[in-house]
Amino acid sequence: MIFAVPVRMAGATNGPAPLPSRVSPLAPTHVPKLPPVEGVRLATAEAGIRYNNRTDVLLALFEKGAAVAGVFTRSKCPSAPVEWCRDKLKSGAARALIVNSGNANAFTGKSGRAATKLTATLAAEAIGCRAGEIFLASTGVIGEPLDATKFAAVMDALVARAAPDPWLDAARAIMTTDTFPKVATATARLGRALVTVNGIAKGAGMIAPDMATMLAFVFTDAPIAPKPLQALLARGVVDTFNAVTVDGDTSTSDTLMAFATGAAAARGAPKISRAGDPRLRPFQKALDTVLASLAEQVARDGEGARKLVEVVVEGAVSKLSARRIALSIANSPLVKTAMAGEDANWGRVVMAVGKAGEPADRDRLSIWFGDIRVAHKGARDPAYDEAEVSAYMKRPEIALRVALGLGRGRDRVLTCDLTKEYVAINGDYRS
Amino acid sequence: MIFAVPVRMAGATNGPAPLPSRVSPLAPTHVPKLPPVEGVRLATAEAGIRYNNRTDVLLALFEKGAAVAGVFTRSKCPSAPVEWCRDKLKSGAARALIVNSGNANAFTGKSGRAATKLTATLAAEAIGCRAGEIFLASTGVIGEPLDATKFAAVMDALVARAAPDPWLDAARAIMTTDTFPKVATATARLGRALVTVNGIAKGAGMIAPDMATMLAFVFTDAPIAPKPLQALLARGVVDTFNAVTVDGDTSTSDTLMAFATGAAAARGAPKISRAGDPRLRPFQKALDTVLASLAEQVARDGEGARKLVEVVVEGAVSKLSARRIALSIANSPLVKTAMAGEDANWGRVVMAVGKAGEPADRDRLSIWFGDIRVAHKGARDPAYDEAEVSAYMKRPEIALRVALGLGRGRDRVLTCDLTKEYVAINGDYRS
Repeated sequence: MIFAVPVRMAGATNGPAPLPSRVSPLAPTHVPKLPPVEGVRLATAEAGIRYNNRTDVLLALFEKGAAVAGVFTRSKCPSAPVEWCRDKLKSGAARALIVNSGNANAFTGKSGRAATKLTATLAAEAIGCRAGEIFLASTGVIGEPLDATKFAAVMDALVARAAPDPWLDAARAIMTTDTFPKVATATARLGRALVTVNGIAKGAGMIAPDMATMLAFVFTDAPIAPKPLQALLARGVVDTFNAVTVDGDTSTSDTLMAFATGAAAARGAPKISRAGDPRLRPFQKALDTVLASLAEQVARDGEGARKLVEVVVEGAVSKLSARRIALSIANSPLVKTAMAGEDANWGRVVMAVGKAGEPADRDRLSIWFGDIRVAHKGARDPAYDEAEVSAYMKRPEIALRVALGLGRGRDRVLTCDLTKEYVAINGDYRS
Repeated sequence: MIFAVPVRMAGATNGPAPLPSRVSPLAPTHVPKLPPVEGVRLATAEAGIRYNNRTDVLLALFEKGAAVAGVFTRSKCPSAPVEWCRDKLKSGAARALIVNSGNANAFTGKSGRAATKLTATLAAEAIGCRAGEIFLASTGVIGEPLDATKFAAVMDALVARAAPDPWLDAARAIMTTDTFPKVATATARLGRALVTVNGIAKGAGMIAPDMATMLAFVFTDAPIAPKPLQALLARGVVDTFNAVTVDGDTSTSDTLMAFATGAAAARGAPKISRAGDPRLRPFQKALDTVLASLAEQVARDGEGARKLVEVVVEGAVSKLSARRIALSIANSPLVKTAMAGEDANWGRVVMAVGKAGEPADRDRLSIWFGDIRVAHKGARDPAYDEAEVSAYMKRPEIALRVALGLGRGRDRVLTCDLTKEYVAINGDYRS
């Protein structure tokens, strides 16, 4: 099992960054320092949208503009900012990104559309650009009107203060029920130049209590046109954000956007206009690394999570079939509660394979926890040692593998366990 | 909201039947006394499959045979008894049903198939019929070999003791984590005769901890041939058992079978050989009543359940679309935890509508809890009173209604809340 994030070992106390006291036990031990991305400046502010005494608005300013790409929730009831971004994405050009926490501006009807327009207009005036060049994301309460006039008081200061360095502050400003800020960085060679890919994300459950959403933003100085950037993002999301589930609930606001300033062209990076350009390969790898790290951090911050669970399905008739079976296992409340109970309950895994509706033959099925094969060819593995597997299940990270024995389809999904804390976080908050 | 089962009112203490001490708070107050069904005799015994000091095997004996029909789990990894029954159903003729609790005989490979054959052979010898006339169901642990030789010690006694009356004993013998036995009865006119439909069921979660399955069995003296009986059952299951979900997890062993002895023919009931026979209408209604009651009792006994939740979706483009949206709501962990928290969190309902992937227009969506409209045409209902809806949410039964405003498709699904007790039942049992 290979994870993208350095992990907190049992008993380790040398986490370098000061983290909140109730931080997830699965949080990364090491928070990397993100380098500047040429052409990107960041600022955060307290707009008082819902929270007091914390930042709740982020400006990412692209001095000379940026190519932009995005993938969004498949929800049929998307938030107003998602609809705004989908529309503005057609031009492929961005001058700024504004993200607020505290209010998702979702299911807010006409007033929601008016709020997005006002936010973009305020930002465009402060920056000196068109409203259509402003991209927006909101996360927080659903169904409450967003008072966008609150942004007016902070917009000029945000633009004035924007600086290349405050990446961790940026990640903090967009948190809702997250227990730690999520950042990742990587570099890649593009032609003769070294380019940077930085990413920030928030999310701790597809929806947190009353607080919607997974949001992730990636920034690079690589000179990549909107079309190939969109293709890279669409490809990159498949095995990262689309392969992570906390509770199977999809937000109305899930947003992943990438911004490419192109500033590295001045250092000799070639301008990329085609998705198939072979010079993009190292960049795709760097982008995938950042997306994988951010997505894994979302699973590690799953509400109430005490275990990170990797579900690998192999021997399926196709990758898509393997994905569906892996998600059926990863979203099963009975599998997830068994993980919480440190029980290698492979009977529930069989159940979840069976209910996925994909080709499966009970008599060819094998199941492993870690390297321990617990079931083989349709029955309990005769060599399976209960004590050995019990010891394995006490670990904070569990690798669950299912071999179907039908074909060469393979896929991997990350999830977390389902604990009483999840129910408490999502059920007790009003009591 | 119309339920099929008389309910325990807050503070009521006059439940007539002695029930287990930790019985579900949603259990029916009244347990009907089931009348005999001519041609059916029942007996239970302690075979010691897994439990001590309780019955764990049921024999239903059809003195002169019965027409049989069945619907089974859609799991691609069904249990050995499910495969046995599917195969034997082709003849349409039954002499007996054997059900055991404690072991599901699922994922048991060749030994599982041998165990079903041995069980049927033992029963056939004791009764004096062919093994192919014996129908089987098992519920309990998955993946443990079922020692069918244990049935040998009790089979002759079961046949000897079989009697027309012990319906409640029959329902008790097939319980696993159920907190109350589930029975229902109805009568219908068929031609000039009055016929009886009795049903028993078990299930408390699609899978209970290590214990698989929803099982339900219906018995009637109506003279209905296997083909129309199968059609009636297939139609009846759509809005009853297929419209109930506890955790979205489908067992490897889910089984619903109907047995028609035909004894009422001697009292003048016409022999029915066509599904379309109009004389069947009252019978279908009685059958549906029994199925609806049993299915609702399964939801009322959902693991850890403290609230019964009815989800009605109307104005969808079709009934199927309404069903899919209703199931998306009913299976959403965030909706279910909100119900446990007594929170009218319609934002999560919007999320669940959005993720269902079915046609929905946010700006036409309205949502009610009981008679209180909380959201209207894409935004919070301006008239919605927080105190009124908070009082409503404290009830043990919650009616959640969503109007999509697109078409005439309507459907109804029953579920229960997701509580810390569910996690404890399914996660803590080994600790």
